[in-house]
Amino acid sequence: MLRGFSRHWRPLAQLQAARRVATNAGSADRVALIQGSSRGLGLEYVRQLLSRSGQRVVGTCRTPEHATELQQLAKTSGGRLTIVRLDVTDEQTIQAAAEEVAEQHEHLDLLINVTGILHIPDKISPETALSRVTPEALDMVFKTNAFGPILTAKAFASLLEKAEKRSGASSERPAVIANMSARVGSLADNRLGGWYSYRASKTALNQLTKCMSLEFARKHRKIASILLHPGTVDTGLSEPYQKNVQPEKLFNRERAVQQLLSIIDSTSMKDNGRYIAWDGQDIPW
Amino acid sequence: MLRGFSRHWRPLAQLQAARRVATNAGSADRVALIQGSSRGLGLEYVRQLLSRSGQRVVGTCRTPEHATELQQLAKTSGGRLTIVRLDVTDEQTIQAAAEEVAEQHEHLDLLINVTGILHIPDKISPETALSRVTPEALDMVFKTNAFGPILTAKAFASLLEKAEKRSGASSERPAVIANMSARVGSLADNRLGGWYSYRASKTALNQLTKCMSLEFARKHRKIASILLHPGTVDTGLSEPYQKNVQPEKLFNRERAVQQLLSIIDSTSMKDNGRYIAWDGQDIPW
Ligand SMILES: NC(=O)c1ccc[n+]([C@@H]2O[C@H](COP(=O)([O-])OP(=O)(O)OC[C@H]3O[C@@H](n4cnc5c(N)ncnc54)[C@H](OP(=O)(O)O)[C@@H]3O)[C@@H](O)[C@H]2O)c1
Ligand SMILES: NC(=O)c1ccc[n+]([C@@H]2O[C@H](COP(=O)([O-])OP(=O)(O)OC[C@H]3O[C@@H](n4cnc5c(N)ncnc54)[C@H](OP(=O)(O)O)[C@@H]3O)[C@@H](O)[C@H]2O)c1
Repeated sequence: MLRGFSRHWRPLAQLQAARRVATNAGSADRVALIQGSSRGLGLEYVRQLLSRSGQRVVGTCRTPEHATELQQLAKTSGGRLTIVRLDVTDEQTIQAAAEEVAEQHEHLDLLINVTGILHIPDKISPETALSRVTPEALDMVFKTNAFGPILTAKAFASLLEKAEKRSGASSERPAVIANMSARVGSLADNRLGGWYSYRASKTALNQLTKCMSLEFARKHRKIASILLHPGTVDTGLSEPYQKNVQPEKLFNRERAVQQLLSIIDSTSMKDNGRYIAWDGQDIPW
Repeated sequence: MLRGFSRHWRPLAQLQAARRVATNAGSADRVALIQGSSRGLGLEYVRQLLSRSGQRVVGTCRTPEHATELQQLAKTSGGRLTIVRLDVTDEQTIQAAAEEVAEQHEHLDLLINVTGILHIPDKISPETALSRVTPEALDMVFKTNAFGPILTAKAFASLLEKAEKRSGASSERPAVIANMSARVGSLADNRLGGWYSYRASKTALNQLTKCMSLEFARKHRKIASILLHPGTVDTGLSEPYQKNVQPEKLFNRERAVQQLLSIIDSTSMKDNGRYIAWDGQDIPW
């Protein structure tokens, strides 16, 4: 496979070191891929996972060269964190990332699709009225929030399946695909309206994930797919909309990710297809 | 407003005749717009509505020059049916159509968004597995099934609002936006998976419509927005997938549209935001 420098942000020596670690690590080691890890919840997932001994992490983002905090984590990770370019709106980068990760790791145990957009300065802001809904925003928000995660799951499914084979029939623990949804994607819970593109993109993500969860179960692929709502978390995404949030309901990233990882850690096939809030409760569709 | 010949399929004399009828008809006359009326359920909606005395109908479709059956209906409608070009994947045509209709009619009482795609020969077929999901199909199916209808509702909302003002506070009957959804868009009812793009596009349409229903209610716009599932109906859309449908569960178009129009006719603000099957039952989200 040909690849240009642009797809790697890491110097070659560091890449080779990571591959050596991957090779030496033995099959017991766990590998997680955090898709959308340049900042916000994605970066915090990487940080907390790296604090687990033996855990290897792939952090993907669309512009590794700008992801300075992630790069910093990689430097101190002892080769356990590798950074791979992946733009969810561009399937070629998803496929290239899947090939690159397959060269680094024999399997994946966990894929978290974190990427999501609600507003982009001078480009997109959540629609307060139907009159503000535009084809351009619908297009971009759905590509990023709904299509991207499912195309990422498609590209990495075979690596997640290898986790299944690796763990054998005796293991109760499935590989997990956790897609970051949001409570505002719930239809039953929608009492305010507004935020058309964001809401409906998360609703679409829910349905795409539900389809995937049913397909994998039917095919006896031991991969559990879940949908997570983190609560309102203090990140760039929520920043302009925090003023009406009561302080005790605004989680910091550390707490939010702790809560979500504890759900992910206990995920079994019984949870397959669930839409779960930070406190472990089901959210109605 | 400038407009070229391409936007009209009808000769000018016929257009002028239609405008005269519109002008003479008086405010009691009802006007319905059927978006996606070249064939299938849309064409049948037009046919049945035209059988109501005094009812005026606008039928939109993306290529009026090919919509021979619709043209035939227009010829025998005594000027009550006008045909307007509208491609739901192209917002410019939606806006141009809204301007054109506003010149023909002072108000709209009913907008039915019928357009939907499930398969397109040599281009799109409903995905039986995640491995078959492509960005191109997601893009096209969502643009047609979810974004198009909501952008159409956006463009025609002000004409629907005029129906409200026209009918006055004494009338119980709201203007209606009926978006053709499908039961497979239900999350709660999804037990099989598959058909990723189609399912999720309808789920997204449900959420976009729910948002609209809440917004209009909050703003006291007397427009009721509903989502309809027609059952499995013998049309081009369902044709390749009918073999496992029991004969008594496969409706002909006439029966299907009769059932749906009876729901639409009885729609009040209490039904605003509902997701309703052909038999009047709520479908779980
Ligand atoms: N924060 C909350 O209160 C909250 C509540 C409910 C749900 N969520 C969900 O949780 C997830 C994480 O949100 P967050 O608060 O951490 O958001 P955030 O701080 O705004 O981070 C968003 C992340 O998405 C990435 N991204 C955007 N477009 C991308 C693309 N085309 N390709 C790859 N990556 C892309 C960004 O990368 P760049 O640095 O390259 O822009 C960034 O890493 C989202 O799915 C969000 O919807 C958050
Ligand atoms: N039939 C069923 O069993 C069934 C079941 C559940 C839900 N539904 C829903 O009911 C609705 C009607 O379905 P149907 O069975 O009547 O389908 P159909 O016979 O295949 O007709 C589809 C219609 O959509 C139009 N269309 C497609 N793309 C368009 C675009 N870009 N712009 C404008 N119009 C476009 C087609 O116009 P052209 O002639 O130009 O292609 C045609 O008029 C759909 O929303 C469908 O999802 C149907």
